[in-house]
Parts: sequence; C-alpha cells; structure tokens
Amino acid sequence: MAYPSRTRVGIVGAGPAGLLLARQLHRQGIDCVVLESRDRAYVEQRQRAGILEQGTVDALLEAGAADRLQREGLPHDGIELRFAGRAHRVDFPSLTGGRRVWVYAQTEVVKDLIALQLQEGPPLLFEAQAHAVEGADTDTPVIRYTHAGREHTLTCDWVVGCDGYHGVTRRAAPERTLSTYERVYPYSWFGILADAPPAYDELIYAHSGRGFALASMRSPQVSRLYLQVPNGTDPDGWSDERIWDELDTRLAAAGTRPLNRGPITARSVLPMRSSVTEPMRYGRVLLAGDAAHIVPPTGAKGLNLAAADVTVLARAFGHLAATGSTDLLDAYSDTCLRRVWRAEHFSWFMTTTLHTDPAQSPFDTRLQLSQLDRVATSPHAAAELAANYAGLPVG
Amino acid sequence: MAYPSRTRVGIVGAGPAGLLLARQLHRQGIDCVVLESRDRAYVEQRQRAGILEQGTVDALLEAGAADRLQREGLPHDGIELRFAGRAHRVDFPSLTGGRRVWVYAQTEVVKDLIALQLQEGPPLLFEAQAHAVEGADTDTPVIRYTHAGREHTLTCDWVVGCDGYHGVTRRAAPERTLSTYERVYPYSWFGILADAPPAYDELIYAHSGRGFALASMRSPQVSRLYLQVPNGTDPDGWSDERIWDELDTRLAAAGTRPLNRGPITARSVLPMRSSVTEPMRYGRVLLAGDAAHIVPPTGAKGLNLAAADVTVLARAFGHLAATGSTDLLDAYSDTCLRRVWRAEHFSWFMTTTLHTDPAQSPFDTRLQLSQLDRVATSPHAAAELAANYAGLPVG
Repeated sequence: MAYPSRTRVGIVGAGPAGLLLARQLHRQGIDCVVLESRDRAYVEQRQRAGILEQGTVDALLEAGAADRLQREGLPHDGIELRFAGRAHRVDFPSLTGGRRVWVYAQTEVVKDLIALQLQEGPPLLFEAQAHAVEGADTDTPVIRYTHAGREHTLTCDWVVGCDGYHGVTRRAAPERTLSTYERVYPYSWFGILADAPPAYDELIYAHSGRGFALASMRSPQVSRLYLQVPNGTDPDGWSDERIWDELDTRLAAAGTRPLNRGPITARSVLPMRSSVTEPMRYGRVLLAGDAAHIVPPTGAKGLNLAAADVTVLARAFGHLAATGSTDLLDAYSDTCLRRVWRAEHFSWFMTTTLHTDPAQSPFDTRLQLSQLDRVATSPHAAAELAANYAGLPVG
Repeated sequence: MAYPSRTRVGIVGAGPAGLLLARQLHRQGIDCVVLESRDRAYVEQRQRAGILEQGTVDALLEAGAADRLQREGLPHDGIELRFAGRAHRVDFPSLTGGRRVWVYAQTEVVKDLIALQLQEGPPLLFEAQAHAVEGADTDTPVIRYTHAGREHTLTCDWVVGCDGYHGVTRRAAPERTLSTYERVYPYSWFGILADAPPAYDELIYAHSGRGFALASMRSPQVSRLYLQVPNGTDPDGWSDERIWDELDTRLAAAGTRPLNRGPITARSVLPMRSSVTEPMRYGRVLLAGDAAHIVPPTGAKGLNLAAADVTVLARAFGHLAATGSTDLLDAYSDTCLRRVWRAEHFSWFMTTTLHTDPAQSPFDTRLQLSQLDRVATSPHAAAELAANYAGLPVG
C-alpha cells in the first residue's frame, strides 16, 4: 500500500466531523487525508446522537451525502415535555418560522460518509494511530502515526483535529496556550437500544421525581431510551423488566400510554460533561467537534456543533484556495465559539432543568417545574427553547 | 383610647401588603383593623424596593392611593444590561406590548397609604406588638397583642399575616402543616443612598468580573446604588471613595460615563434569600407578601408580589361579602402560588445570571455571558426577560 506523505489538510479522526470535512474539501478540489485509529466496523457501530438540525442536513446535502438520509430520515416537528404529571408539546415549525429536525442516527451518517469516501476519495486510513502532531507553529505541521505496525509521517499545510477530547491533536498546542472550561454533572445516562417500535412519533423529555427519562428512536422499528442514573452505574446490574418499569414510571403523564417493550440489544452508561477549549486553533492546527467542545446530550447538540464547525472550516479552506487569504481561517475560532457557547448554554439549560441533581433542594425542584410550566405557557419561552433545539444558523 | 375587640379581617403588619389590603377592604366596606409592632417613623423610613409594576400601580390607583405616585413616580421603559464591556438596553414597551414600570420608592407608597388610613380609616395601631395568633382552625381566630404596656385581644373572622418572614402569623399554623422552600445566596447587596443625581435615566444591571452592581435611583436628586459583597460585610468598613470607585469599575462599559458622586446618606448590607411557604393559608389565617415568600431583590419582585397577593385577597373577601361564598378565598393560595413561583424563578434567574458566586468556575461565567449575549441578540430571550420584569397579570 502507498502511504501519502504530503497533503494540504491532514484530518485526524473519522467521526462525522472528520468525514464530513473530507467530503466538503474533496468537492472543492482541496487535497486531504483522513487518519482513523480504529477499524471501520468499530467506527460504524459507535452509538452516538440521533438528531440532525436542518443546518446539518443542509451540510450533508451540499456534500452529496444525504441520499439515504432523505429516504430514511424521520422529520420531527417538535418534542414533548413531561413534568408534574402533564404532557406538553413544543411545536418547532410554528415557533421558529418553519424549522424542524431529523432523526437519523450518527452511525448511519458515518456509514454513508465512509462508503462515499472509500468509493470516491480522498484517502481514508483505518487503524492509523496518530501519536503526535508536531510543528503546529510552522508552515508544515506533521502527523506521526502507526499503521500495520510501521511508523509513518504525513506532512501537511494544515492539520484538523477531529479526534475527540482524548485525541492527540489537542496536545499539539504547548501547555497553557489553550484554555479549557469544564463542568461535570453528578449523573449519567443509562441508554438502551431495543427492538421495539417507538410508542410515540416524537421525542419525549421527562422530568420526574425519580430523575430524567428520554424516549427516543433510531427507526420505526428501533427504540432508543435513556434513564438518568448515578455516575458509575453498572448497565448490566439492571434487569430488562426493571429498565422498562422505570422508563414507564418516569414517562407517565395524564393521557399517555406505556412504552412498547422488546428485546434490549445494547445498553451503556454515558457520563455527562460540558467542555470548551479556546481558541479552537493553535498555529496551523485547528480543532473541530468533540476535540474542541463537549456537550451533555440533553440538547442534542454534539453532532450538530461538529457539523457546523467543519462547515465553517471547509468554507475557510475554500476561501484560502480561491484567494490565498487566511482571513476566514483566522476567524474560524471566533466564528465557531459564539455558536458553541450558545449550544453549551442550551445544553446546560436542558440538562439542569430536566435532571434531578442529588444535591438539589425541594426549592430547586420547584424552580425546574416553574421553568417547564413557563415553556408550556409563554410563547417566548417556548420559542426560545425551540429555536435553540432546532438549531441556530451556521457561521 | 378605645381598642377594637372584634373585626372581620385582622391584619398583622403595616408594610405595603397590610396597608394596601386595608385600603382595598375599606373601599369595599369590609371591616378590618391593622396592627403594626413598630412606630410610624420606623415604618415610613424602612428602605426597601423602588420598582412598581403596572399591576401594582393599577392596584394603588384602584385603591385611591396613587395621587402622589402619579405626580412624582418616574416611568421607566427599560433597563440596561452591562456585561463583557458592552451595554445593551432592554426595551419593555416594544417587547411586551406596551408595558412599563415605575420608580417610586416603597417608603413613599407606605407614607401615602398611612396618611390615607389615619385620615379615613380603617383603624391602624402602631407599636401594637402581636405575639400570638390563635384559633386559626376555628371560625373566630384571635390576635393577642400588647399596646402601651397592656395586653389586648382582637377577635376576627379572618386573620391576614402581612408581618414578614419573622412575623408571628406564620406560627399560627401547627408545625408541618406548611412547607417552606428556601435558598440562601452566598453574597449580599451593599446598598447606598446618595444625594447625587442619577447618571442614567434607567436602571443599569452590571455583570462584571468583580461581581454584580446596580445603578438605580429614588428620585431625580437621589441615587440608589448597590454592590455585590460577601455575606457579613461591614457597611462601615468601606470609605466613600472606595464605594464610588468600585461602582464605577463594575459599571464601566464601552461608551458609558462615570456616576455622579455626592454625599452618601445611608448604607446597609442586605443578605439575599429565596423562600416560599405553601400553602399560603392555614384555616382562617392567610399569609401575604413577605410572610409567605421572599425573593432576592435582583428581579424587583418583592413589593409587586405582595401587592398582587393582597389584590387577589381583597377580591376574595369582596366575593365572600357579596355572595357568602369562600370559593375565592379557598383558591387564594393556588391562585397566588403560580405567580409566586414564576417570580421566584425569574428572581433566581436574574440573581444567578448577574452575580459572581464565589464557587463558580470560569465555565459558569461563560454560561452567564452566553445567556446575557442571548438576551442582547434574541428577541424571544429579550421578550421573556422584559415580560417577567415588567410583570405578569395579577390573578
């Protein structure tokens, strides 16, 4: 196999950020290479988000990667909030001037992008373990990686880190040149996949005295369901029956019906964290997606922020190729961070409004219920939630 | 002096809640008596809030107690937020369909109501120290009080506690029949009155790295200014110069000017607390204003909640007098509590968005700035703040 030794944009990580960026660059004729440490099967099966904002769908359409999404994606025009025994629907189109979201699992986005890239390029190497990014402050940063037991070097004009919070790219910047802002939440999500038709057409976010629950879906046949649990919960410590009973109890509200039960095919516990790294660049190394910021999943923002980052970045590389100007690359971090902080705030808002903090007082619980009641009764409060959930404009 | 021994409604406390209720009952021909533990001078000089919602102004107008308010009150059509070196005005009428607020100090409201009541009735006794409310679960609750060194008993059909959080009326309910929800904040307000014309026409709420500051006013000649300080701060431990310098530093933003300085005529430190007691009634004893709920002052809601409570209560007593039905009295607590919790949530929101918690992380500070930026850029977020500040409908 011939290993590329030189490229314009070296991309570390073949999650949705890296793959979408490669596609966006490829379609502009900008040379790039994607290195991914895991194998293809692993990457394609990693369970992540499932809600795409219109802006993310638009970016995939623009990248020519939305054929299956358009056939199989499920448009959603709202979510339901349940609290204090009541159910209240938030209607996105009427509150946002026509915006909606799409249910289409991140795993499917990744599969679609991988298939396209392996067919059309640019180069994508699985099991290529990047272990250092060097020369970030030079004009030719290099990525050192191992593949099939041998060391390789990829020399780039630019390196984009799409390799997540624990990736190697973040470490290309000397200590103290980047600032990281973080918050850890005192609870996790216990998520299951079940071969059971979703009981509801839309997502249901439930506040309850027993903690948060979320009824979601992957397809018309597959339910995706979550329970707030203490950090460190063992997912195998719960019987199937206990999981279903707990979901039904937390999701109960006047006039609602229980979930459809079916075989549980996957279970996992996800800790919840907020994190932002500023700036999202050091020299010729740029960070995108989870490498730059983490959101708790309650706002459904992680994948969408990643897609927005690389869309801004692809435009900036296009501008550089067309004009020779790095203006847009220089503005990249500032352009993204305002949107990132908005999403961080919204994700924090959704998380702390809906979950039960083990330390929260009965007063705090009443504030949560007053906030939820406000969303149910004030058009402005509802519109503010809908606008953030359905997604702000990219760029 | 002849002491009344029997009345329909015994009111404990001659703050704005008790005085306004007495006036509202009197105008409906409903017999009542007000007992106040302090002397008149003390009550008339107690520095409290200064912002009246339109609903509060309407209640005072309706009660025939707004002549001077109409002459001297200052209508305000917005507030200014300052954060991250920027100044942003929130315009109430355009965001709320024409609502505004009025600057007219609580002390002036109290003076007006006292003057009216001493002139026209109903009976108002100063230095009448209520020490017990008994028989709340009977048809004839009694207030036991001391006046001029002698014990007296006032037998009532109903008792209304307008005597604040530390008042005696709350104790008329047996333990555990009422629930109290509370939150204490890890900072106080250092407030000053100064003989200096306000530098700005409207109130300025400032978020800064050094803590919150508020520039307010009592009249065109008198400034009312606040600084966030640690709990337990000694108000006499700060020189005048230090106070003015700190205010100017925290209030600084692009294109703004310093405060007008002048003699500081009063200084005090106010701790900040949220508290709600549920229900706002036990038997024939009803709680109103601070006796039922406390808000931190950041949302300017304390006086307005008290006025809303007694307005609901006066209607309920009117309904009872006219029809013999206690329906509205029975609904009193539920009617008020939804509004109370909205105000509690808004007051908490304003407080925690603008103050610096000593334990807050840089991440938390960024969330505050993202929220403030959102108010400055999203019409829905701005409208939500304006609607809450200008006040929700009474009842």
